[in-house]
Amino acid sequence: MTVELEHGYIKRIVPEWKPMTGSEKKPELYLYNSLTRHKELFNPVTGNQVKFYICGPTVYDSTHLGHARTFLSLDIVRRVLKNYFNYDVLFVMNITDIDDKIIKRARQNYLFDHYVAKTCKNFNQIAKDLSLALILFKEKYEAEKELDKKQMLDKMIVKANEAVKSVEKELQAKKGAASDYHIDLLLNSAIDILSEWLDANLGKTVSDHAIFDKLAKKYENEFHQDMSSLYVLPPHVLTRVSEYVPEVIAYVERIIKNGYAYKTSDGSVYFDTVSFESNPKHFYAKLVPEAYGDTESAHKHLKESEGGLSIGIDRLQEKKNPSDFALWKSSKEGEPFWDSPWGKGRPGWHIECSAMNSAVLGEKLDIHGGGCDLKFPHHDNEIAQCEAYLDNENWVNYFLHAGTLKIAGLKMSKSLKNFITIRQALETYTARQLRILFLMHTWSEILDYSDQAMEKALQFEKFCNEFFLTVKNYLRRVQSQCSDEASSYQKFEAEELQRLEKFLSIKQEIHAALCDSVDTRTVIEKLREMVKMGNEYIRDKEKQNVIPNCNFLRNLAEYVTSILKVFGTIPESSQIGFPTETSESVDNKEELVMPYLNALAEFREAIRNLAIEAKNNNILAECDRLRDEILPELGVRLEDRNNQTCVKLVDRETLRREQEQKKAFEAAKQAEKLRLQKEREEKEAAKEAAKRIPPEEIFRQPNEAEKYSKFDEKGIPTHIADGEEISKKQRKKLEAAWEKQQKLYEQTMKNGYAGMNGHSKQNGTTNGH
Amino acid sequence: MTVELEHGYIKRIVPEWKPMTGSEKKPELYLYNSLTRHKELFNPVTGNQVKFYICGPTVYDSTHLGHARTFLSLDIVRRVLKNYFNYDVLFVMNITDIDDKIIKRARQNYLFDHYVAKTCKNFNQIAKDLSLALILFKEKYEAEKELDKKQMLDKMIVKANEAVKSVEKELQAKKGAASDYHIDLLLNSAIDILSEWLDANLGKTVSDHAIFDKLAKKYENEFHQDMSSLYVLPPHVLTRVSEYVPEVIAYVERIIKNGYAYKTSDGSVYFDTVSFESNPKHFYAKLVPEAYGDTESAHKHLKESEGGLSIGIDRLQEKKNPSDFALWKSSKEGEPFWDSPWGKGRPGWHIECSAMNSAVLGEKLDIHGGGCDLKFPHHDNEIAQCEAYLDNENWVNYFLHAGTLKIAGLKMSKSLKNFITIRQALETYTARQLRILFLMHTWSEILDYSDQAMEKALQFEKFCNEFFLTVKNYLRRVQSQCSDEASSYQKFEAEELQRLEKFLSIKQEIHAALCDSVDTRTVIEKLREMVKMGNEYIRDKEKQNVIPNCNFLRNLAEYVTSILKVFGTIPESSQIGFPTETSESVDNKEELVMPYLNALAEFREAIRNLAIEAKNNNILAECDRLRDEILPELGVRLEDRNNQTCVKLVDRETLRREQEQKKAFEAAKQAEKLRLQKEREEKEAAKEAAKRIPPEEIFRQPNEAEKYSKFDEKGIPTHIADGEEISKKQRKKLEAAWEKQQKLYEQTMKNGYAGMNGHSKQNGTTNGH
Repeated sequence: MTVELEHGYIKRIVPEWKPMTGSEKKPELYLYNSLTRHKELFNPVTGNQVKFYICGPTVYDSTHLGHARTFLSLDIVRRVLKNYFNYDVLFVMNITDIDDKIIKRARQNYLFDHYVAKTCKNFNQIAKDLSLALILFKEKYEAEKELDKKQMLDKMIVKANEAVKSVEKELQAKKGAASDYHIDLLLNSAIDILSEWLDANLGKTVSDHAIFDKLAKKYENEFHQDMSSLYVLPPHVLTRVSEYVPEVIAYVERIIKNGYAYKTSDGSVYFDTVSFESNPKHFYAKLVPEAYGDTESAHKHLKESEGGLSIGIDRLQEKKNPSDFALWKSSKEGEPFWDSPWGKGRPGWHIECSAMNSAVLGEKLDIHGGGCDLKFPHHDNEIAQCEAYLDNENWVNYFLHAGTLKIAGLKMSKSLKNFITIRQALETYTARQLRILFLMHTWSEILDYSDQAMEKALQFEKFCNEFFLTVKNYLRRVQSQCSDEASSYQKFEAEELQRLEKFLSIKQEIHAALCDSVDTRTVIEKLREMVKMGNEYIRDKEKQNVIPNCNFLRNLAEYVTSILKVFGTIPESSQIGFPTETSESVDNKEELVMPYLNALAEFREAIRNLAIEAKNNNILAECDRLRDEILPELGVRLEDRNNQTCVKLVDRETLRREQEQKKAFEAAKQAEKLRLQKEREEKEAAKEAAKRIPPEEIFRQPNEAEKYSKFDEKGIPTHIADGEEISKKQRKKLEAAWEKQQKLYEQTMKNGYAGMNGHSKQNGTTNGH
Repeated sequence: MTVELEHGYIKRIVPEWKPMTGSEKKPELYLYNSLTRHKELFNPVTGNQVKFYICGPTVYDSTHLGHARTFLSLDIVRRVLKNYFNYDVLFVMNITDIDDKIIKRARQNYLFDHYVAKTCKNFNQIAKDLSLALILFKEKYEAEKELDKKQMLDKMIVKANEAVKSVEKELQAKKGAASDYHIDLLLNSAIDILSEWLDANLGKTVSDHAIFDKLAKKYENEFHQDMSSLYVLPPHVLTRVSEYVPEVIAYVERIIKNGYAYKTSDGSVYFDTVSFESNPKHFYAKLVPEAYGDTESAHKHLKESEGGLSIGIDRLQEKKNPSDFALWKSSKEGEPFWDSPWGKGRPGWHIECSAMNSAVLGEKLDIHGGGCDLKFPHHDNEIAQCEAYLDNENWVNYFLHAGTLKIAGLKMSKSLKNFITIRQALETYTARQLRILFLMHTWSEILDYSDQAMEKALQFEKFCNEFFLTVKNYLRRVQSQCSDEASSYQKFEAEELQRLEKFLSIKQEIHAALCDSVDTRTVIEKLREMVKMGNEYIRDKEKQNVIPNCNFLRNLAEYVTSILKVFGTIPESSQIGFPTETSESVDNKEELVMPYLNALAEFREAIRNLAIEAKNNNILAECDRLRDEILPELGVRLEDRNNQTCVKLVDRETLRREQEQKKAFEAAKQAEKLRLQKEREEKEAAKEAAKRIPPEEIFRQPNEAEKYSKFDEKGIPTHIADGEEISKKQRKKLEAAWEKQQKLYEQTMKNGYAGMNGHSKQNGTTNGH
């Protein structure tokens, strides 16, 4: 390209830039958005900043796998947004530490402890109280409509009655006081029934805030510990309702001011769903529009939504519309309270999330996450509140709901006895294995937890781990064998280039899968494909007796590691593969230990070769003992590959399991060997015995005799079983068999008597020749 | 939103989704593209895959700061693409191990070494040869046009002449042969001049490829070591010209076939720039269009571009156009060669990059990187070759050139004595400090290396480090003070929320800066601002005597760390801040490593005992080698104690220091022993000498004589120095001393003559007693 300058001088200038473009559309990140029920292109409001709010737990009980489903799955999404797509994620979570469930549980625990102390294990008193409590409890049983909850209540009643009978039986037998053991058993069996009754009678006497706080704090701590065991990243900002009451009050005031809420005579404030819905810029229940106007559904959710202490008929009558919900609840006696313009009360469940995320994150939220059971009414109410507060059309762009968790196909529930806490799950499996299971399922769909599903996760872990260990072994070997840095860069020949291309294309598939609403399930499949390709490559090279291209192997292993790092499955500090043990400090263990193990392996190899040369079996046995007994105890596996020892650092448990399997295999092999030997011996013995049958007897042996009906003097059959005479042809066969047996018999008998003589004679004959 | 279904039933459905959008345009990554001389939106050809090729070094000398400028700066760009923008970068680098500079240097080194061995330090021979060599060298001096190179050549001549004079002077003084010391000095001073002359005469006799390979391999290794010291990531694929000759030949054949190259009568192949330029779809010299047709510039670049061995007039005359360049050079005697369709020859400099990156990366390249001094002709020729090969309009989308490096404002050159190798720089500063300096400069602009510039880098490092340490201190304190996890989550009050907002906005500024052609200079400024804000926050809280919000501090420190990690300034394993020296991990290193070492020691012991029993000396030697050679290198000391081996883990440095100390201690002990012995001998001698002084002389000895002024006939003093007479008491003392000396003297004299008699007599006396 040229330009003409002044005076006609021509100057060459940079030509037009025509960049090449690819044929396909670039994948961009889409997220499954509950607000549209479709995957939507993800586009944060400001730059690459993502404001992400998630509904945390209501802290009144231990964390279970259902919680893991929400927090672990959304942790994976968060990590992918941050670590893979490099969004600047600001992650905020709340803790619901003011709630009817907490109030009730705290009061009941407190009252029950007092009751136990007061009654001093007096059986008569307890039995009397329990009979009263059972009357109340049966009312609850009658009122319960959900089948499995009803069953559970029934079981409780049966259990309590059995415990009473047990004590009575003991009393009759001993004719004295019941033992503490049986009383404790009774109290334990009847704890829920008695607590319920105590709370009904004495609940309103409990007034110390500390009683509620203590329970909440206990379970909040358990929650943090459990999340940390699962390697769920902590939130950047954590908000507790108890710390945000002033913000909640201000928030409610503005909703009232905007005309979407009203105060009732008892000092509560309700959200006016009808007023909200009637404004054309609003829409109530964006997530589950079907639920609005559906009285049955509304009724079903009422208790869960409004809280067990807040659905008395007195309260419900105060509401303008059945779908209205509490923003502020007046507190009765025995309920914690804060002062407000409407009297003593506490925040409703839904308002806290609106008030807190607005306080921290402002008026525009990119992503709201939570469990799918919270869609309606909690999240729909939260949306309504925020839009009512801002009086605008929209406040959050993406709503992500983690899918349901099932246990072997069933809903997890205490009554089904398939209720698993996080701590219980972690007794059987590691956090890494659980995370792999979660990765194998799409975050927004159903996850079915079962031993079979876990088995698949364990297989994947082992499959990757073996690959990592093999690659690391090769890298170490090349490093120790190459005197210079340059030699570690081998040329990429056709074989490697072809696989490099495959590697690149799988990476693009993984990229596309992550863009497709963080489809980790596909990613895991693709990683498996990649590792398989790596293994095949190694196997090919081993067959050719050539060291594989280590740069290529490193690239593969580092990539697989990096994706597992993105997911939080491998800590950042590991360059290749899983860290050897769970404790943190051990990340660089491999790096530390390997030089010494290499020295050991090389020394052993040198010794072994010298011992083979010198035919020194003692030393060889010592070499074997090191490999089979000493090192496995230290978590070290020596593998013989192509006359070279491969050193692998494996955790001790795995090695022990392997060792046991090996022993079991050896034992089975040995047993099979013995069986075959016995079989052989038996056959030999039978053959030997057959030789000793006189020819006249052979057709009279079992199996043979039944075929014939008459025999001649030599014992040769003349007629077959049905009386027919034997044909000539057949007769000849039988005679031949008779003669063969006669020869065999005579020889056997002769040998039998003559012992070794026959053999000597033969030798003698040879000599005489 | 509702829809009317059949039978007039109204169903509510999900309302239309109207996502909020931000007010500003999203920043997207732009890169400064030498092909347009502007920042261009970065868009890889395929998905998020980036094919990145970079011109590696020509390995004929040590790596210097100019190399660091290219490889470290482009390492930063590569890391940002991968770690920040999450591109799947495939990074390929070449090593130019066939080149005229390598050939010449290798030949000269080889010939010079032979020359030194052959001349046996014969001065006359050397002086004679040098005078011949100087004639040739002066021609070179005259021909040189660049001023600073000319100065350097002049200095060399002066130095060589001085060295000759020095030897001549020595010869005159000693009238004999010159000392080896002076001859070595002379050879050293004249090395370049002699080598040049030797090569001119004997270069063509060098034919062994191994001579060239050895030099190339040596400097390739140095290069890898230096890059690794600078934490420059290794390439995914490394290509060496020597391994790609068949690919180069095939590449050249296709260019000839496409009509853009021609063979000359001497067996070389040249690129036909005029044929190329005349095709409307091509444009020669896209990067520096001004250079085409500019004969002066072309001439200047000729030697650099075509190689010192390849610009003879014979060759130049074969070219069709002055701007044509060699694709394949016929090799003369003394030059390595490969067979080709055009005869024995070797690849030209530019063709290797085209052929190799095409072999590995295919037909479309996203990014090509290199030093800015390579723009023309190297990169322009490379572009022309690729487009000629593919016969298309475009083959690479982005060309990134690292800016120039200056030393305190001046060009770095050997003649200016400001030439700094990477190893020299690393003696003064750490790799981290150098990297910070590079980050403080835009990669595509001039970087001025000076002590003042380094001072700024050190200041930044210290500023961040202090912040990290303070934050870590608070985190530890809160962790140890808080009994529960929950308490570590403090509420974000107005003070924190305000700073959180600032934090978020600086992060967006950093994002924008990285999008702006990886503007690390601005990022460093912004990080400084962020740390400053963190420090102010801490100071405010300390004034209020309140523990700062540790979650907020952690967020800040982790973010700063994460960006420094992206840049390769902090290793991945560190969560917050710069890693501390190994001191921390050393404690548990022992714990970790010991079990394995014990196993090794026990195994060795068992083997050793068995080998002693079997009298197998080979195995015993292997056991010794482990203890004396292998393990000390690993910092392990095996000590034999009570027939049991004691294992000690000592770091290698310590072990080496110990060994040195041990040697030094032994030497000092020996020296002290000698000193004491000498002292003893001297004392003995003095004592012996004193015995041999006649009694009349003892008061006239030095030190004694000056105390007195007069003596009597026996030599006993009568007056002291000031003339006063000696007292009677004193006189008596002097007489006693006189008599004692007389006895000693007589006995000594007698023994002196009688030998051992005196001793015998004494014994005799004792016996007679």
